[in-house]
Amino acid sequence: MELQDGLSPVVDSGDDILVPMDDVREHLVVVGNGMAGCRAVEELLARDSVRYRVTIFGAEPHVNYNRIMLSPVLAGEKTFEDIIINDRAWYDDNGITLITSDPVTAIDRAAKTVTSQSGRTIGYDKLLIATGSDPFIIPVPGKDLPGVISFRDMKDVDSMLAAAEAGKSVGGGEAVVIGGGLLGLEAAHGLTLRGMKVTVLHIMPTLMERQLDEAAAWLLKNALEGRGQTILTGADTAEIYGEGKVEGVRLKDGTQIPASLVVMAVGIRPSVALAREAGLDVGRGIKVDDHMVTSDADVLAVGECVEHDGNVYGLVAPLWDMCRSLADGLTDRHTGYKGSVTSTKLKVAGLDVFSAGDFSGGEGCEDIVLRDASRGVYKRVVVKDDKIVGAVLYGDTADGGWYFDLLKRGENVSDIRDLLIFGQAFAQGGGALDPKAAVAALSDDAEICGCNGVSKGQVVACIEKGACSLDAVRAGCKASASCGSCTGLVENILSVVLGDDVQSGPKTMCKCTSFGHDDVRREIVAQDMRSIPEVMQKLHWSTPDGCSSCRPALNYYLLCALPGVYVDDQQSRFVNERMHANIQKDGTYSVVPRMWGGLTNPRELRAIADVVEKYDAPMVKVTGGQRLDIFGIKKEDLPAVWADLNAAGMVSGHAYGKSLRTVKTCVGSEWCRFGTQDSTGLGVKTERMTWGSWMPHKFKIAVSGCPRNCAEATIKDFGVVCVDSGYELHVGGNGGIHVRVTDLLCKVSTEQEALDYCAAFTQLYREEARYLERTAPWIERVGVDYVKQRIVEDDAGREALRARFLYSQSFSQDDPWAERAAGANTELHQHLDPISIAAE
Amino acid sequence: MELQDGLSPVVDSGDDILVPMDDVREHLVVVGNGMAGCRAVEELLARDSVRYRVTIFGAEPHVNYNRIMLSPVLAGEKTFEDIIINDRAWYDDNGITLITSDPVTAIDRAAKTVTSQSGRTIGYDKLLIATGSDPFIIPVPGKDLPGVISFRDMKDVDSMLAAAEAGKSVGGGEAVVIGGGLLGLEAAHGLTLRGMKVTVLHIMPTLMERQLDEAAAWLLKNALEGRGQTILTGADTAEIYGEGKVEGVRLKDGTQIPASLVVMAVGIRPSVALAREAGLDVGRGIKVDDHMVTSDADVLAVGECVEHDGNVYGLVAPLWDMCRSLADGLTDRHTGYKGSVTSTKLKVAGLDVFSAGDFSGGEGCEDIVLRDASRGVYKRVVVKDDKIVGAVLYGDTADGGWYFDLLKRGENVSDIRDLLIFGQAFAQGGGALDPKAAVAALSDDAEICGCNGVSKGQVVACIEKGACSLDAVRAGCKASASCGSCTGLVENILSVVLGDDVQSGPKTMCKCTSFGHDDVRREIVAQDMRSIPEVMQKLHWSTPDGCSSCRPALNYYLLCALPGVYVDDQQSRFVNERMHANIQKDGTYSVVPRMWGGLTNPRELRAIADVVEKYDAPMVKVTGGQRLDIFGIKKEDLPAVWADLNAAGMVSGHAYGKSLRTVKTCVGSEWCRFGTQDSTGLGVKTERMTWGSWMPHKFKIAVSGCPRNCAEATIKDFGVVCVDSGYELHVGGNGGIHVRVTDLLCKVSTEQEALDYCAAFTQLYREEARYLERTAPWIERVGVDYVKQRIVEDDAGREALRARFLYSQSFSQDDPWAERAAGANTELHQHLDPISIAAE
Repeated sequence: MELQDGLSPVVDSGDDILVPMDDVREHLVVVGNGMAGCRAVEELLARDSVRYRVTIFGAEPHVNYNRIMLSPVLAGEKTFEDIIINDRAWYDDNGITLITSDPVTAIDRAAKTVTSQSGRTIGYDKLLIATGSDPFIIPVPGKDLPGVISFRDMKDVDSMLAAAEAGKSVGGGEAVVIGGGLLGLEAAHGLTLRGMKVTVLHIMPTLMERQLDEAAAWLLKNALEGRGQTILTGADTAEIYGEGKVEGVRLKDGTQIPASLVVMAVGIRPSVALAREAGLDVGRGIKVDDHMVTSDADVLAVGECVEHDGNVYGLVAPLWDMCRSLADGLTDRHTGYKGSVTSTKLKVAGLDVFSAGDFSGGEGCEDIVLRDASRGVYKRVVVKDDKIVGAVLYGDTADGGWYFDLLKRGENVSDIRDLLIFGQAFAQGGGALDPKAAVAALSDDAEICGCNGVSKGQVVACIEKGACSLDAVRAGCKASASCGSCTGLVENILSVVLGDDVQSGPKTMCKCTSFGHDDVRREIVAQDMRSIPEVMQKLHWSTPDGCSSCRPALNYYLLCALPGVYVDDQQSRFVNERMHANIQKDGTYSVVPRMWGGLTNPRELRAIADVVEKYDAPMVKVTGGQRLDIFGIKKEDLPAVWADLNAAGMVSGHAYGKSLRTVKTCVGSEWCRFGTQDSTGLGVKTERMTWGSWMPHKFKIAVSGCPRNCAEATIKDFGVVCVDSGYELHVGGNGGIHVRVTDLLCKVSTEQEALDYCAAFTQLYREEARYLERTAPWIERVGVDYVKQRIVEDDAGREALRARFLYSQSFSQDDPWAERAAGANTELHQHLDPISIAAE
Repeated sequence: MELQDGLSPVVDSGDDILVPMDDVREHLVVVGNGMAGCRAVEELLARDSVRYRVTIFGAEPHVNYNRIMLSPVLAGEKTFEDIIINDRAWYDDNGITLITSDPVTAIDRAAKTVTSQSGRTIGYDKLLIATGSDPFIIPVPGKDLPGVISFRDMKDVDSMLAAAEAGKSVGGGEAVVIGGGLLGLEAAHGLTLRGMKVTVLHIMPTLMERQLDEAAAWLLKNALEGRGQTILTGADTAEIYGEGKVEGVRLKDGTQIPASLVVMAVGIRPSVALAREAGLDVGRGIKVDDHMVTSDADVLAVGECVEHDGNVYGLVAPLWDMCRSLADGLTDRHTGYKGSVTSTKLKVAGLDVFSAGDFSGGEGCEDIVLRDASRGVYKRVVVKDDKIVGAVLYGDTADGGWYFDLLKRGENVSDIRDLLIFGQAFAQGGGALDPKAAVAALSDDAEICGCNGVSKGQVVACIEKGACSLDAVRAGCKASASCGSCTGLVENILSVVLGDDVQSGPKTMCKCTSFGHDDVRREIVAQDMRSIPEVMQKLHWSTPDGCSSCRPALNYYLLCALPGVYVDDQQSRFVNERMHANIQKDGTYSVVPRMWGGLTNPRELRAIADVVEKYDAPMVKVTGGQRLDIFGIKKEDLPAVWADLNAAGMVSGHAYGKSLRTVKTCVGSEWCRFGTQDSTGLGVKTERMTWGSWMPHKFKIAVSGCPRNCAEATIKDFGVVCVDSGYELHVGGNGGIHVRVTDLLCKVSTEQEALDYCAAFTQLYREEARYLERTAPWIERVGVDYVKQRIVEDDAGREALRARFLYSQSFSQDDPWAERAAGANTELHQHLDPISIAAE
């Protein structure tokens, strides 16, 4: 088709283009009728309404609408009309030629023309590419089945509404949304409101991980689950299945989720095909300068399709910034685009979620956190060099804009640092208000502790009766004893009443919380908490996601409290426990297979020899714990090594874990001239019973066949010394930095009793010792008499402990090596090329 | 030749036999003109000088001479004429026909005739076989070479004299006597006196082991060596070499001893060939009843050729007993022979050696021992059930006869028990003399301690000045401080002066001595003692050969004091150290190969796996000391197991010894993220330096790469804890029955210093700790400050200790397994059939 002139400025697809033949203005052709393209034209018109003749090509049949408001349309909160930005009148009023349903398919930069799908070819003086982005479709089998859609435009919304409508005949229908980001959750919300049973699959451990930290993400997940959605995190889609149409999704772990609709909302990719074919510079997006000019001076680009200074953007605010700079450029102003800082709000009714800036933390960053468990509020402001660099708000996002403004302006917040987290009204209202003064000004009947209904007057009375520490106040009047959110208030009251006489309380778990280990464990059980973020939220953690001290501890406490229920959080484990091997100085791993009671056999020895040679292990060494240790195994070889060792009958020796390490034995009555009992046999039985158990710290057992004690049982956590008349049970020994000799727990007559007492003692330690507390300091803290009272004197209690240990073990005794060798957590075992260092 | 009659009663070989034709008396033919045959005739004649007509056949050309006096003849102390018992006149006077140089070669019992070598055949009514014994010739190559003789008759003496004479032209000549029994030593003595250079080879560990205990044998050996003889015990002859004549003897250990004369004196065998051919009952000897009648009523036998009641005899006294019984029988008296108890005296001028009865000791036996080092006297009387059952005397044999008489008569000696050892004069003279009364009666200037010249008055003065114990007296006036032989006297003086106020002294080494460990070690060095019997003699051991406490201790002290000089006494070692493996309950052994620093490799692991399967070991197990332990190896398989392990490059792990056990290590800076130094490397170097060393007790070392102390270095005898700035050295830890944490010795900067201090500390422990004293009690006894003073503060002293340790190690670091695998001590590894139990 030839270039044609015409008069009508607005054309629908299929119509001819009519432009005044006498218009000699520069012709600006805009490829893309979306939010960025139209906003660019708006900005341009605002600066110079006559300089350019404008033609806009759109792929959709619609005028420009607010794409980010598709969610409310899906949700039934708005209609399509509600979200139109520029109606037909705007195009007409501004003399813009709009060509809909006819995407541009080629650019001839030499001829300075564009050609559309329908065959139209028109010339341009300036070309603006605003093609936006395409949904990313994960390349799984079944991705092209009917019923698999994305969530990008009104057509997608129509498909979803049709599916929901169809589902009504079968009780609502089932939908799967793949992607737990902003878009996916909005889709899920809309589909839920439309009556569908929705499952969200998210491959990462937490929802909206690019916008939310773990704490906010947990609150969000908790709320979405409360609304009936099923949220599966760490869910890796293997296949979309169905005969002729979608019937469901199968995950890599084998789970199947039936669905008549699958919405892929895993992300977007800048739409760059047109620009690339035209020979423009393209990286992740179409490369532009600060004036949104591409590598061709007459071709500009704006919106989600561009890459500026290495960044691409998928949110609306940067688009507006780009459009302003573009318009400035086209009108000979040279302000230039300097990149954007973004913020996010989730548009889901009743859920207030706000995120802005960088919350990855790191060197020099300080987190200010406020949690209010009763209101479901989490606020976190990240400050670096006295400036806000990030903010995450959940439950109360009223101050999101204020924080975002401070962030964008790079305002120094040091003056209002202490009050910042309480929001604009408080921080700006009181100036540099002293929190103590604020507390002092409270009336005596002001409620301090909402959980326990304690007034300021009651707290003061408690202090005046002699409570000189936070802990004493907690014990005396219960203030701050439950959720801890009023801890700061109580501390201020203490300070006001006592001045310097305030005593510091017992050591808290870490700097993230005002609670000690025992408090946390008690509350985990009392409040039936089931995840780390839940604990942090309900106990008002002062950090967003804890620290390397509290996370492994909480993970352990939850694991201990909820055997078979709590899902282990790999990210809260030390690298050795994640890898199920000991990382060494050079980044390789050492591997220790289990040898029950230290016994081995030719098959195992040969298997180890084979592994050493096959995987080129530079060293193999006997350990002090009576096992063999293979050194220098590369991370990516671990699963294969384990498979080989498994094949010879060996499982993980847990030499890397806060867990039962080894049971050392001497040879006992079977062989030794001095042996009084079958110490080796008892050692094997003990190890079979206790292996795989997670503990507060590493745990070592030994069984010596006579008082000569060749297995060194009296410096072990649990040691058995066989004597002629039975078994002496010893506890709380340590052979490391500070050697501690065991205490004698008691003497028993039979092997079964020795095993029973061992199980009960182990469980008491598991339940009551603090994380990273070996049995030695634990027993020194609680006293061996206490342990005797629980294990020796209380028969029913001992039996209950033993039963709980064995129940817990029923979930623990799977070989993690076999799981990994079979393909679990393969991402942990990828090969990483060492960073190459340039040779001079 | 026909039977001939004649008149001449005495015939020489070749002469015809002339007997009176009219003599119708019973004809007694005696085969053998030696001591037994002639003595039997003498006894017979004494009873009835006419009843029998007597004919004696002799193989030698001589009349009957005293064979046991050949030694003095050889020695030049007597002539042949001096030792003739029955000269020609005796034969003539008693009408005895003597046929010399014509041995009887056949007996025809049916015809009742004997036939001689020269062809004479004569009839008998009664035949007396007195063929004596033949020297035993060991079946080695060269045994038939000219110059190899035995020591049985005058012909042998003549050969020896000729050799000595020939030797004079070459400065004396060299002779080897094989056999360190009575006969051999007498031959050696004679040859020495005749000017030859004599070497005695004895296969057993001590001389005259059938007559002497170890203590007496040591004194004897010492005396013989003092006379210029070379005595080699444990010497196993491989070959007598020479071209056409003897040139020397080669031992199995390769030693060669040049000699122009070799005397075999290893024992005698009853001469039974004639009797066996005649069809008489023969066991070890010719079987006779109590009247010396053989299985043929007309044939009798007497002397060394007979076996009576299971016994054969090689000494003279039993012969006389037999001859008396025989003569009684032939003259119709029926006293009967009841066997003999024997005693022995060595007929070597200046050496008084006496032995009688059974000195093997055992259940219910009590040894009474008197030693006088200054006089070179050792006396031992073995008492059982209040009767003397054995006696060994050396240096003073005056009372030998008295003891032997008491022994033979089975006299009850309980009344004279306390004085018995002092001899007949003292015991019988004073009746039940009170030793205290005897001491009280001594004058003040009576010498008590000969070594130090201390009089009774000086001892009393010392006691009156406050010395209340043996030890205090020793310290105060030196009495009993050297050889200890006056200890009993000093104790009695203490008792006389102080009554019940005598304080018991410090613990002695064991009940065999009044000295403590430190005294013994000091005297070993001071007196340059070089063997266990020497220590026992010089320090007046109260037992003949020590006990299981003092023997291993003395062996160790000598080994430590005389590296490269003292020859280890296998019999003074515990079974595990003898076998170089750990004996187990069922009599099998466990085998632990050394793995330097706990490091191993595929080759070793496969070798161990192979051994387990090849030798059907029921168990293989990792030890607490970072090694692998193979259980259930049969004693006879040990050398083969060791050869297999040697072939894979492994040596003994000394898991059985009072020696360096293992050096435990953690992985250190090479691998561990926390490691500060190369603990594994240092551990390997330390083990290479210290392995093979014998110690007062087992000795354990560990090297930890950081203060986390994974190698548990602070419960080891010597522990190194690496820190960033160097090496902390810890000593005196223990992980057994009583856990003891190490003391910090010092900190050093370099690996070499750590090794040097380790060597010095080890040597200090080796030299100063008591046998079976671990470092922990040793350091508690001497104080860690003392150890610091010696090792840390005294640079020259430390260096000297280190040098002594390394010198000692230059003799210790041979793999005992390789030696055994190569054939050493094979007798230890024989298979013993288990006692079979009859199945019902």
